[in-house]
Amino acid sequence: MAVGLTALPHLYSVPGIRLGVTAAGIRKKDRRDLVVITCESGTQVAATFTKNRFCAAPVTVAREHLAKTAPRALLINTGFANAGTGAPGLEDARACCAALAPQLNCRTEEVLPFSTGVIGERLPRDRVIAGLPLCLKNLSEDGWSEAARGIMTTDTVPKGSSRQFRIDGKIITVTGIAKGAGMIRPDMATMLAFVATDAAVAPAVLQACMMAAVNRTFNRITVDGDTSTNDACVLLATGAAGNPVVERAAGEAYAGLSRAVTEVFTELAQAIVRDAEGATKFITIEVRGGRTEADCLEVAYTIAHSPLVKTAFFASDPNWGRILAAIGRAPIAQLDVDKVAIHLNEVRIVRHGAPDLEYTEAKGAAVMRQPEIRIGVDLGAGNAAACVWTSDLSHDYVRINAEYRS
Amino acid sequence: MAVGLTALPHLYSVPGIRLGVTAAGIRKKDRRDLVVITCESGTQVAATFTKNRFCAAPVTVAREHLAKTAPRALLINTGFANAGTGAPGLEDARACCAALAPQLNCRTEEVLPFSTGVIGERLPRDRVIAGLPLCLKNLSEDGWSEAARGIMTTDTVPKGSSRQFRIDGKIITVTGIAKGAGMIRPDMATMLAFVATDAAVAPAVLQACMMAAVNRTFNRITVDGDTSTNDACVLLATGAAGNPVVERAAGEAYAGLSRAVTEVFTELAQAIVRDAEGATKFITIEVRGGRTEADCLEVAYTIAHSPLVKTAFFASDPNWGRILAAIGRAPIAQLDVDKVAIHLNEVRIVRHGAPDLEYTEAKGAAVMRQPEIRIGVDLGAGNAAACVWTSDLSHDYVRINAEYRS
Repeated sequence: MAVGLTALPHLYSVPGIRLGVTAAGIRKKDRRDLVVITCESGTQVAATFTKNRFCAAPVTVAREHLAKTAPRALLINTGFANAGTGAPGLEDARACCAALAPQLNCRTEEVLPFSTGVIGERLPRDRVIAGLPLCLKNLSEDGWSEAARGIMTTDTVPKGSSRQFRIDGKIITVTGIAKGAGMIRPDMATMLAFVATDAAVAPAVLQACMMAAVNRTFNRITVDGDTSTNDACVLLATGAAGNPVVERAAGEAYAGLSRAVTEVFTELAQAIVRDAEGATKFITIEVRGGRTEADCLEVAYTIAHSPLVKTAFFASDPNWGRILAAIGRAPIAQLDVDKVAIHLNEVRIVRHGAPDLEYTEAKGAAVMRQPEIRIGVDLGAGNAAACVWTSDLSHDYVRINAEYRS
Repeated sequence: MAVGLTALPHLYSVPGIRLGVTAAGIRKKDRRDLVVITCESGTQVAATFTKNRFCAAPVTVAREHLAKTAPRALLINTGFANAGTGAPGLEDARACCAALAPQLNCRTEEVLPFSTGVIGERLPRDRVIAGLPLCLKNLSEDGWSEAARGIMTTDTVPKGSSRQFRIDGKIITVTGIAKGAGMIRPDMATMLAFVATDAAVAPAVLQACMMAAVNRTFNRITVDGDTSTNDACVLLATGAAGNPVVERAAGEAYAGLSRAVTEVFTELAQAIVRDAEGATKFITIEVRGGRTEADCLEVAYTIAHSPLVKTAFFASDPNWGRILAAIGRAPIAQLDVDKVAIHLNEVRIVRHGAPDLEYTEAKGAAVMRQPEIRIGVDLGAGNAAACVWTSDLSHDYVRINAEYRS
């Protein structure tokens, strides 16, 4: 039950990018679980990965390969995360890349591996390798929607976003897909997002553009505070649009690119929260009036991770005392509680650290019944602000995660 | 369903301490919700309170009163926390103390107020005050068990602990009660613990004894990571045992006192986790081999707060990849993943950061079926260690907290 998500939007194809999907039976039968994304020679890449120290084998291998050369293919499997698998896991990831490379006439280091699924169990590499020819047979520039379905695990809906704009008269496309619904608190990236554009962009500019967008989107969502071992975000730029190469992270062309990339990232990041495991509410937490952005983020995440706040939202209960208690325990250096104000949407609940005299339970309840709710916090201490998106904590979250491996 | 808790143990009375309980109808009818604990003149006190910046009105008032004098009475209500209530809340807390004082022939500042329950709603002071005479009528040295019941909120069982030992031949008693099941991550104290001894102890020694015990007991438990606005821990020492006053925090008498107090605190702190909202498992997390105790605690709390780890324990699923992922995201400066080892009870699961070759799913499953489980983590980086107790995350946790105010 994804909050406010309907059908997958139309995903424009990106010249130079092809996608192929198959059901390779990696962990379950008859389920799309293997995706190959190819890009033309000359494509630039920007990528960022999890900061979890127990990063997965494919993350390690992808970093190694990226340090050597730009990729020609991304190889993505679901079912097993290939994390916590030690040296054999690294061999599995490398073997899959080595099997795909000759079929695309490229080198092993031009293949980047990505995995998602159960942590701590070996990847059945033979099934992955056996599925590759079928993936390649299905390769198509129109494969984005199928690929969005092919990377799902506990996701209930596929996630994609697409934008078009112009640089010097040339139509530029930005299209992306993402997956993730649990173990979501991305730290520099999120659980598998693949975005491509046909713009011609210098590599350093592409990386800057991606990181600026990541820091405002994928790095601002949390479902359960659990940073995954496999987070990865990749932005490809094929250059097929024929625009003059965007050579610096400023100016009109960059602004257009950055806006389109940030919009696609925002839609994907929010889609992950909307489809969070068991979610019935989509919650925007806006903290302003902080002394620093870091303070605002600490307060926002403390609220976002509070099981008591999350269960109150699930119950549509305007139990704002739990929000107040979360703010009060947030790990920031100074907090003047007499200056704190709290809003639920447009309803002011707390003013000067105490209940607003005009607040009524009925007003709070009316907001809480809505599926999309904004918690506004003003710390009254400065001019910094930050925004985080999260979900509620429901019976289904517990059920999904208690039954995950069964 | 409290894990491993049966009947309340026998609670020895503490000479000089009397307890009275009544059902004052503060929030619900016919429910014990008001407790008065009195102590003889000359009783020494040690106390510690929540670090939540939005501390409750009674916490503020209790701190003010303690700064002036030692207490003659503790006044405890359930139903409403009197937190997030601003200036009127402070007036309510003071008015209740002022109403009790003349009935005990003491001054207002000799009464310490404590509240627990819903945050953000006014305390119905008239009901509290109306209930006082009945509490006083019931005052008894044998009132510990009734008082343990009288301070419960979402607790399913009363919590108490008692020890006796000798100083210079005199029998010394330490008896305590506590409440708490949710919004539990004490920070210098826990959600209402009242412990008394008849030992004669100098005030500074009593405070040192209490804080040493608190830091290894109440400050080492977490249910949901949510530090309460009302946490308080009070240790009274009446001196009625007639032992030579314990004047310094060293030596045999202090060692005996400290051991007894720590054992009582440990039993109470563990009882809170055993009775955690919805708990089906009691989980001990022992992290050793850290460079500092702070590092060990960060790792232990990151595991303890992970919703994914907690749901796996609820499901009795040995999904140890989630423990590994939690360790990997713990906010410590250095982590050499190749040195990490993980045990579930005596079963080694991870060695040198990768699955132990002798581990089988059947071994893990056998441990996970048990109601009491130890997660052992060795960071392989030093000699520091820390231990934290926590519970699992079940359907009932969500149900209890979604329905809390209904």
